[in-house]
Amino acid sequence: MDQFWLTDVVRRALEEDVGPGDVTSLACLPASQSVRAEIVAREPGVLAGLDAAREVFRQVNHRLAFRGLMEECQAFSPGNKLADISGPTRDLLTAERVALNFLQRLCGIATLTRRYVEAIAGTSARIVDTRKTTPGLRLLERAAVRAGGGHNHRFGLFDGVLLKDNHLQAAGGISAAIRAARAAAHHLLKIEVEIEGLEQLEEALAAGADVILLDNMSVAEMGEAVRRAQGRALLEGSGGVSLETVAEIARTGVDFISVGKLTHSAPAVDLSMEICP
Amino acid sequence: MDQFWLTDVVRRALEEDVGPGDVTSLACLPASQSVRAEIVAREPGVLAGLDAAREVFRQVNHRLAFRGLMEECQAFSPGNKLADISGPTRDLLTAERVALNFLQRLCGIATLTRRYVEAIAGTSARIVDTRKTTPGLRLLERAAVRAGGGHNHRFGLFDGVLLKDNHLQAAGGISAAIRAARAAAHHLLKIEVEIEGLEQLEEALAAGADVILLDNMSVAEMGEAVRRAQGRALLEGSGGVSLETVAEIARTGVDFISVGKLTHSAPAVDLSMEICP
Amino acid sequence: MDQFWLTDVVRRALEEDVGPGDVTSLACLPASQSVRAEIVAREPGVLAGLDAAREVFRQVNHRLAFRGLMEECQAFSPGNKLADISGPTRDLLTAERVALNFLQRLCGIATLTRRYVEAIAGTSARIVDTRKTTPGLRLLERAAVRAGGGHNHRFGLFDGVLLKDNHLQAAGGISAAIRAARAAAHHLLKIEVEIEGLEQLEEALAAGADVILLDNMSVAEMGEAVRRAQGRALLEGSGGVSLETVAEIARTGVDFISVGKLTHSAPAVDLSMEICP
Amino acid sequence: MDQFWLTDVVRRALEEDVGPGDVTSLACLPASQSVRAEIVAREPGVLAGLDAAREVFRQVNHRLAFRGLMEECQAFSPGNKLADISGPTRDLLTAERVALNFLQRLCGIATLTRRYVEAIAGTSARIVDTRKTTPGLRLLERAAVRAGGGHNHRFGLFDGVLLKDNHLQAAGGISAAIRAARAAAHHLLKIEVEIEGLEQLEEALAAGADVILLDNMSVAEMGEAVRRAQGRALLEGSGGVSLETVAEIARTGVDFISVGKLTHSAPAVDLSMEICP
Amino acid sequence: MDQFWLTDVVRRALEEDVGPGDVTSLACLPASQSVRAEIVAREPGVLAGLDAAREVFRQVNHRLAFRGLMEECQAFSPGNKLADISGPTRDLLTAERVALNFLQRLCGIATLTRRYVEAIAGTSARIVDTRKTTPGLRLLERAAVRAGGGHNHRFGLFDGVLLKDNHLQAAGGISAAIRAARAAAHHLLKIEVEIEGLEQLEEALAAGADVILLDNMSVAEMGEAVRRAQGRALLEGSGGVSLETVAEIARTGVDFISVGKLTHSAPAVDLSMEICP
Amino acid sequence: MDQFWLTDVVRRALEEDVGPGDVTSLACLPASQSVRAEIVAREPGVLAGLDAAREVFRQVNHRLAFRGLMEECQAFSPGNKLADISGPTRDLLTAERVALNFLQRLCGIATLTRRYVEAIAGTSARIVDTRKTTPGLRLLERAAVRAGGGHNHRFGLFDGVLLKDNHLQAAGGISAAIRAARAAAHHLLKIEVEIEGLEQLEEALAAGADVILLDNMSVAEMGEAVRRAQGRALLEGSGGVSLETVAEIARTGVDFISVGKLTHSAPAVDLSMEICP
Repeated sequence: MDQFWLTDVVRRALEEDVGPGDVTSLACLPASQSVRAEIVAREPGVLAGLDAAREVFRQVNHRLAFRGLMEECQAFSPGNKLADISGPTRDLLTAERVALNFLQRLCGIATLTRRYVEAIAGTSARIVDTRKTTPGLRLLERAAVRAGGGHNHRFGLFDGVLLKDNHLQAAGGISAAIRAARAAAHHLLKIEVEIEGLEQLEEALAAGADVILLDNMSVAEMGEAVRRAQGRALLEGSGGVSLETVAEIARTGVDFISVGKLTHSAPAVDLSMEICP
Repeated sequence: MDQFWLTDVVRRALEEDVGPGDVTSLACLPASQSVRAEIVAREPGVLAGLDAAREVFRQVNHRLAFRGLMEECQAFSPGNKLADISGPTRDLLTAERVALNFLQRLCGIATLTRRYVEAIAGTSARIVDTRKTTPGLRLLERAAVRAGGGHNHRFGLFDGVLLKDNHLQAAGGISAAIRAARAAAHHLLKIEVEIEGLEQLEEALAAGADVILLDNMSVAEMGEAVRRAQGRALLEGSGGVSLETVAEIARTGVDFISVGKLTHSAPAVDLSMEICP
Repeated sequence: MDQFWLTDVVRRALEEDVGPGDVTSLACLPASQSVRAEIVAREPGVLAGLDAAREVFRQVNHRLAFRGLMEECQAFSPGNKLADISGPTRDLLTAERVALNFLQRLCGIATLTRRYVEAIAGTSARIVDTRKTTPGLRLLERAAVRAGGGHNHRFGLFDGVLLKDNHLQAAGGISAAIRAARAAAHHLLKIEVEIEGLEQLEEALAAGADVILLDNMSVAEMGEAVRRAQGRALLEGSGGVSLETVAEIARTGVDFISVGKLTHSAPAVDLSMEICP
Repeated sequence: MDQFWLTDVVRRALEEDVGPGDVTSLACLPASQSVRAEIVAREPGVLAGLDAAREVFRQVNHRLAFRGLMEECQAFSPGNKLADISGPTRDLLTAERVALNFLQRLCGIATLTRRYVEAIAGTSARIVDTRKTTPGLRLLERAAVRAGGGHNHRFGLFDGVLLKDNHLQAAGGISAAIRAARAAAHHLLKIEVEIEGLEQLEEALAAGADVILLDNMSVAEMGEAVRRAQGRALLEGSGGVSLETVAEIARTGVDFISVGKLTHSAPAVDLSMEICP
Repeated sequence: MDQFWLTDVVRRALEEDVGPGDVTSLACLPASQSVRAEIVAREPGVLAGLDAAREVFRQVNHRLAFRGLMEECQAFSPGNKLADISGPTRDLLTAERVALNFLQRLCGIATLTRRYVEAIAGTSARIVDTRKTTPGLRLLERAAVRAGGGHNHRFGLFDGVLLKDNHLQAAGGISAAIRAARAAAHHLLKIEVEIEGLEQLEEALAAGADVILLDNMSVAEMGEAVRRAQGRALLEGSGGVSLETVAEIARTGVDFISVGKLTHSAPAVDLSMEICP
Repeated sequence: MDQFWLTDVVRRALEEDVGPGDVTSLACLPASQSVRAEIVAREPGVLAGLDAAREVFRQVNHRLAFRGLMEECQAFSPGNKLADISGPTRDLLTAERVALNFLQRLCGIATLTRRYVEAIAGTSARIVDTRKTTPGLRLLERAAVRAGGGHNHRFGLFDGVLLKDNHLQAAGGISAAIRAARAAAHHLLKIEVEIEGLEQLEEALAAGADVILLDNMSVAEMGEAVRRAQGRALLEGSGGVSLETVAEIARTGVDFISVGKLTHSAPAVDLSMEICP
């Protein structure tokens, strides 16, 4: 079913790049010529986005045969071949950049996620993503987070209740906000509430919060929150998490650590497409 | 006219995030409550993307009044207020994340571009972007590059001829490829050809290339290319350009330096939306 | 934000009915003539769908002024005026049928829901809808259920986990299925499991089901389930619920009673649009 | 050619229900598992909507093989198998509800239509539908009326002229309205005029109406209209037609009897999808 | 309601021409400059298409004020001013070509139609268009035919039955085909049948054809057909009609003369947009 | 990649013509009947548009097999068979008109272009098209121009800079305008400037115009422009070019002659589809 989204997002990307036609390829490549090419890693990373790349080649010309050479989630090293493609040279070159634009970004996200996940290895915490994704690409970017070993938070504003301080203030406090949310949201949605200090923890627990987001708290405070909560709610650490601090946070015993950087600032992984001789 | 694209891209971003409804805001915020909020910088940067943010708020509720407090292209410091928005609290919170997702990414691009532009100050070279943009956001990302002081390369495959090594090979060499392109492309498109060594330079010039892309050459080679070309074609340096090397490249006298990182790996700038008391 | 959906669904309905033009009105109604009309109830009911009707008139001609005369959720009697519309006669008649098609269906749903809600007055159970809605109209039909005093279940397959017997079987039983769901779904989604007999209840509770759907159980069995569960999970009664049986079911103490009929078989309420002399 | 419409309406229904993903099936059903299921009737009815159901399964996964086991238009009894589907379990369960939502509604329309058609067996009258259809589903609902043995009236406002009292009044009476319609509509459209009493009949006939709609007249009046018209125009009985009164109306000799209920109030037929062991 | 179609067709035309931006106007025209321009006829013609032109300017920038200076249907001479537009120079020049592309084509159709209509002045025949229109522009081209004084035939395949020889052959002859059409088409559609010789006329009349298309008959044959038909059906002359022959055909007494050239071969009228000093 | 555009433009054309169904074919043609038909020329011309016609048949029913019998670009005579189609009669007749509407227009353009191209045979000038195309059909019409032996000018406002007198005026003259364009447009776009008299030629050349459009100049003036330019810029003759004058213009030595008529006023070529016995 994700196919609907993928078809659409790839089509838009191709319309953007190819518009009324690839003048270079049309000018100098005969329609009849065929070729094989490989997508090769130039730096280490974790693979994500094969489906998007496959769809790019398919849409440009369904006779371009795309074959993944490694698995989604797999780590690769410089020189590793990630996929190969065979078919008309003209269409292959037309598709190249858009396919790589998807792959390099999604591998970038998977790669950064993997680093966070490895940093907390041995703890029971999970790395989760946020809604700080690229407009239009959330479905793909969430899959890339999973490819890196992370977990997803709610998809959007519609499949989870997260009461932030602005909501709390407007609703008249934590208890009132949770009560209002419980009454209005359907009964399969949990309710998460954001607190900014330990003094709000007990109220949130008493009001029956399912999940509590500890926003920008110190590691010590997070540890204290874990102790006080005693498993009455799931706890999510958030705010300014870095590769340096994430292990320490995980060791406090929080259940989730959400990291915006995974999707908003992961550098692209360097990949290239090379024609086979 | 860009309005068409912007309306569409923003609508998709909102559909993605809000889907069938923002359950949190609907549950605990009364429709009648209004508020004023500000978008505030948490780190230094260069402003880009105000139009996208404005459009997000407008689409969520046309009664949300958005006002830019700084100009596109302007540098900002932590604490600077970039924009303010007034209107229904519920809709303002619904729009917040999507608006910031656009802004933080586009400011990120403008900010990184500005650093490259400043690094080559005093030379006659121009920093230009590439087609390594986020699928679906190219129009906005190109504007962000300009906001940072950079220039744009061709938009896509349709408004410029750029013959890469794969094209050259398939077409039977530089001269043949340029001849084919000249015959097929319309007469308002220039022809750029990518060369990988000085030994190809003379052939490209002789064949009448309008622009020559020096791909992954050393700084010394680029300097030599400038000397040999003697203005017979525009020269573009490309490949692995970093903030450390860009000035040196610019001083060789090339006309353009294209930098993929500007759009594929610029980290987001940290921004937040704060409710005014 | 629902405006996106409404705009779209109304536009499609108008394209379907009006196509390349209302030949009757164009033929015999002068563009300059104006009129006032009222939407009048011909049988008793509960009001829902005003926004959809308003949008129909707005799209046909933004100079058609639509005014609700009663509130969404209000009960009406035959002869009650629900809304009035003023503006160009030609456009008003073009819009009439599509507007009434929305209103009569949505009032039908609200009216039937109200009867179920009244039938269980005094109990703590809630009437909830199901996914058995009209393809394409779910957002509107869910609002009509609320207008009738009912509550909504999950919107679709994406915002709640509901493990039915097919899922249980494929996953290797209740415990395994719940475990798998807990691992894969994000942490703001609750997990509901459907059971078909009391013998499954304890396993579901032990496995940590948040909600248990009692499918096609007798009233006596539902009562027993409530006693055994002791509040460890929310309970939802479902299957062949009718106006005759719903009160009895509610008195068992289940938390929710889901009724497919609300949306798949509610008869339309008879409404008409009358030109004011 | 109807395929365009069907593809689109099914896609919207799936987007509505599945959104960013069926979290339940993805969580607990392995991608590799396959199964066979049957759609079984739980109450008697007339079959309609197989094409819509087939398209739902096809869009969710083209490897889901759908096979109709009975013919469109055929009557079925409880326990009858209407169709079977084989393929990946996960996708089959994702598609189930949307497919049934189409089928149960369209079978409901065919079933109710069949009852009206049978009630007038032996007369020369035809049961016809109206424009009181579900917004967005008219093409499918009209086919369901035909499956039940009914006939279609005009599709919409664009393929037939029907002058109602509001048109007559605005145009200055029956004769003037018919004249205006004749002048403006193209020459392949007939003109139908609605009258509310016998006293208008002669004027309508004299003005050359092709079809006359007898609105809310008594059976006796309809009979009198048939006698007076002597075949000079086709006559359509309409307004508050029920299963109790329809035979009597048909025996008056009117050519058509239009019944809004067929599409706006037909109860869904109870169907289920069952996994084969 | 036509506004839906117009908005869409104009948007597509602008996307086609402007794409990611009008590089010329953006480069050399300051955003702040405003101007007034006039659309001026360079040859005689009949005005049609003002709404399309207005919509083009509105979409490019809603601050471009468009004012028609003559009425749709009016004849104009070289030098006549058809409309004026005021607003930002940059946007006005961006919109110019697309607006003129619509106007010059639609005026061309109205102008050619007017010549045919004038050629048959004094007869009772009507000039009607055909389905030989420009793909995508039928709604506008039909309006242009009316602006020229012609009438419209059916819009498309859905709002009129026209049995051509291929249909007749497949259905087993004229009588069988008409009977099948009468049974299947709804009762507000007339049935037209195409005949190729006088020998088919009586069968068509006897079978109850509402309209008979006389295809490629000589003027003498058409006259004979009129005499034999004695008003029992409407008659349409068709096939190779030219400005030279149309009057003669009209004088035979046929009711309609259909002319494909009106829409498939009308030369554009020469118009220009001139900036006012 | 053009396939995206073609799919879309054909779909719109079919929706326009077929709408909710071809009532004639559905009424009298059995679904099971098959047939073979040929598209035959009734007058001489040059073939263009086979792809569009093929796509029409494919979309109506993918079992309609379309086979081109002549090549795009080939000249044909009356009676020549251009293509044949085999498959279900019903669908073949539904598709006929739309397929011919595309073909007759595109062949018309190719045919007229061929006449211009032949008129200048032996000169070094090229016939080029303009932006005076049918809204929505530019991609197809440009291909038809090429099929006729012509060349394309820029596609739209986005892939070439053309400074017309309004731009020049607003920008402060030729030199300033060229400078502004050079600074703003990306470095792969050439700059063309329109001049209206020989006195502007030197300024345009001095300012570095890549191409100069000689607008509405006499043949003598054009010859003089060629002499003075001495190859320093490409020259394009334009304005009121006819089959009578084009050869004379070509002999002046201009590089390009742009002809708006090719696309805005080419008469359709008469084609028909005939069922094979």
